[in-house]
Amino acid sequence: MISNEVRRKLQVAVGAEHVLESEVDRFSYSYDSSSMAVVPAFKPDVVVRPATTEEVSKVMAVAFEHVIPVTARGTATGKTGGSVPLKGGIVLSLERLNKIVELDERNMMVTAETGVRTIDLYNHCAAKGLFFPPDPAGWKMSTIGGNVAENAGGMRAVKYGVTGDYVMGLEVVMSDGTILNTGGKAIKNVTGYDLTSLFTGSEGTLGIITKILFRLIPMPKQRGSLQIMFKSLDDGCATIHKMLQENIVPAAAEIMDKASLDAVALKRKITFDEQIGSCVVIEVDGEDVDAVNAQINRIDRVAKSCGALSLRVAKNEAETQDLWSIRRELSQAVAALAPDRVGEDISVPRDAFPEVVRRIRKLSEKYNLPLAVYGHAGDGNLHPIILCDFNDKEQMKRVEQMVDGVFEAALAVGGTLSGEHGIGVSKKPYIVDALGEAGIKAHKAVKQALDPKGILNPDKIW
Amino acid sequence: MISNEVRRKLQVAVGAEHVLESEVDRFSYSYDSSSMAVVPAFKPDVVVRPATTEEVSKVMAVAFEHVIPVTARGTATGKTGGSVPLKGGIVLSLERLNKIVELDERNMMVTAETGVRTIDLYNHCAAKGLFFPPDPAGWKMSTIGGNVAENAGGMRAVKYGVTGDYVMGLEVVMSDGTILNTGGKAIKNVTGYDLTSLFTGSEGTLGIITKILFRLIPMPKQRGSLQIMFKSLDDGCATIHKMLQENIVPAAAEIMDKASLDAVALKRKITFDEQIGSCVVIEVDGEDVDAVNAQINRIDRVAKSCGALSLRVAKNEAETQDLWSIRRELSQAVAALAPDRVGEDISVPRDAFPEVVRRIRKLSEKYNLPLAVYGHAGDGNLHPIILCDFNDKEQMKRVEQMVDGVFEAALAVGGTLSGEHGIGVSKKPYIVDALGEAGIKAHKAVKQALDPKGILNPDKIW
Repeated sequence: MISNEVRRKLQVAVGAEHVLESEVDRFSYSYDSSSMAVVPAFKPDVVVRPATTEEVSKVMAVAFEHVIPVTARGTATGKTGGSVPLKGGIVLSLERLNKIVELDERNMMVTAETGVRTIDLYNHCAAKGLFFPPDPAGWKMSTIGGNVAENAGGMRAVKYGVTGDYVMGLEVVMSDGTILNTGGKAIKNVTGYDLTSLFTGSEGTLGIITKILFRLIPMPKQRGSLQIMFKSLDDGCATIHKMLQENIVPAAAEIMDKASLDAVALKRKITFDEQIGSCVVIEVDGEDVDAVNAQINRIDRVAKSCGALSLRVAKNEAETQDLWSIRRELSQAVAALAPDRVGEDISVPRDAFPEVVRRIRKLSEKYNLPLAVYGHAGDGNLHPIILCDFNDKEQMKRVEQMVDGVFEAALAVGGTLSGEHGIGVSKKPYIVDALGEAGIKAHKAVKQALDPKGILNPDKIW
Repeated sequence: MISNEVRRKLQVAVGAEHVLESEVDRFSYSYDSSSMAVVPAFKPDVVVRPATTEEVSKVMAVAFEHVIPVTARGTATGKTGGSVPLKGGIVLSLERLNKIVELDERNMMVTAETGVRTIDLYNHCAAKGLFFPPDPAGWKMSTIGGNVAENAGGMRAVKYGVTGDYVMGLEVVMSDGTILNTGGKAIKNVTGYDLTSLFTGSEGTLGIITKILFRLIPMPKQRGSLQIMFKSLDDGCATIHKMLQENIVPAAAEIMDKASLDAVALKRKITFDEQIGSCVVIEVDGEDVDAVNAQINRIDRVAKSCGALSLRVAKNEAETQDLWSIRRELSQAVAALAPDRVGEDISVPRDAFPEVVRRIRKLSEKYNLPLAVYGHAGDGNLHPIILCDFNDKEQMKRVEQMVDGVFEAALAVGGTLSGEHGIGVSKKPYIVDALGEAGIKAHKAVKQALDPKGILNPDKIW
């Protein structure tokens, strides 16, 4: 519960109709898309919906004065509980800051408010022939502010990098309400510390991102897709490796293991050739048909040299859709195999992909838990999915142990806890192992410096 | 002067022969490659030359305990006084940390100590067909630690980005001697704050970078070069713009104004066609001859559409060298025009390049100071060179005023103080205008957090 004084101040800041305190509103803004249990819900005391940076600033000034926790929130598509208000207080919903401020075609840059949905930004730019590449799986729902706060990745990362690679500058409201601007349209910029990168991926713990300047690139003119079947995951990984080493950089390179394929087969009521142990789906793009075909031919050669069983090239849009459907349906298909699932997001050195999958498979046997693995093999980012039933207490204990093992395996091969989902709540227990004591100390020092009262998204990351 | 106690501790840390206190040693380690006057010299009290990270850690522990300023130094090729020990104390020379630790060909990454020279790292990787693109002008002398500390750019930045774009992880010795590791070989990594980017470009004020993990890319197999003459700087800039908008991304795109060309003509005792107002030299690269030629043909079309006067394509290595010599000789040629020169490094939104040059030319007229402008037009990073005589007191006053005007012009068109040289000492007076009060406050908070005693490269940046 907030005091009458705080309520009045918040109402003055954003208008009474945007200060929500009903039970249902507080519940609605209490969870995200992670597999964190929503009961008991971490309900905020109040939901505040500012419409402008100035209103965000006023809300933060109130929160700072009264030492109230503030958890920023876009559309809550996050996978690690980043926008769950663990300590109650204010949920700062940024959905009304949804304007695309400027599309600067000459400099190929776009400025937009934090609550703009990723797909809307993409379409706005695409209409002018400009390409905003970051494509997290939830891009039709997710907001760009959330993408930046989590430094979200996506399938195109192998060629085009992650969200952070496109952030040129930020407007950030600091914990005390101060409005800070970082970066700018100068492409090369070494004036002061790289605060832009510091806020990117900071999961709402250092400041509230209210506006973003992104760079864009020209939209590729032609695309092509291939689907390649292999006997083993190792052969699929080897193909992706060899491609990259030969400077064939696909726009996307997704790999799925046998369990993932079995799930798709079950859903579609088809069967795959028994020999098939993994499937790789690749998109290439380029300036013209020749450039695309040249890449496809080179990939064909590499795949055959790595023992590919079969290779299909999409001849038209319908075939492209069909060929990618195996990847798109995967999440649903796997979901159908069990009442619940725990999906993880680990990232390892590219060449450790097969090794970490082997280690995780052993865990699956050890704990007797079915497992599907798919991911962005081109950048070593994989999603092991453990099939389970949240109501089976005994099983969930094994799931917990297996998750511990998954992170242990990632770190053991030189990898890290998260490639694109962030740490949030769900990966906190492993953070010291990942960053070391010195790393945690540096994190805490930076946090204390920029959020001295500890009100921004408390209890996250470590 | 350091106390006997400190001397003894430093000698224990690195060996007596690596603790230098003679007048000549202290002078030798007092200046860098900036145009800062070396008289009076900012001599350190002592020069310490550790050989390992552990030794750096021990030196920092001593400095921390006794609150002694520490200025890290590679080969001092910096252009803004970053490695000048303004407050005396310890100059920490990192030249002995010069091992290339590991070239991981499979993951296309290299780990090296901070004191490795850029060219040595480049050659080591190139021998295995791997490309380390960052190429600051001083790359034959500069060390990779300095490159990272300044986030150095170079001619290839337009296609390949700057040093920071290749840093995957760092080993950093903190002000109290703690050894911190950031990042790693996982390509996608959102575990915690992006401390790697925070230390990159922090100019030795947040920690001592001792080891660096860089990503590499496959070496391009073919290159081609073009030299294009234009009536005006605007036509040259327009060509580079249009190329980039049409997704023709050159490996380098350098522009020179008429004054720069005149300097080269004078040096070479030749004359250029009177019509020529600017020259653009471009390098393209690609997988094969066809890919390179396709780019050259497209550039040819774009340049003609922007009013190019002439276009030369190098047919062999000798012609390539000749064609680039106009750019390579530039610095020397301009230097020959006057006893001294003040070279600046500003960076503006790409489309503001012609406008900022117009503004700077007006300043040149106003203050009656000859000027040459050249730069990396593809990324809006330019180097206006003011010709002058350090001994002419009255003139140097005008130079100071003109430099003020240059930075004012950069900020007025949405640009920034530095594209690749850093802030160091020489740009400190302008930092508040560039970053704003909120920006400075955030910088100071971060600095205080990571260097609570303020001993790391004091008095720099702000």
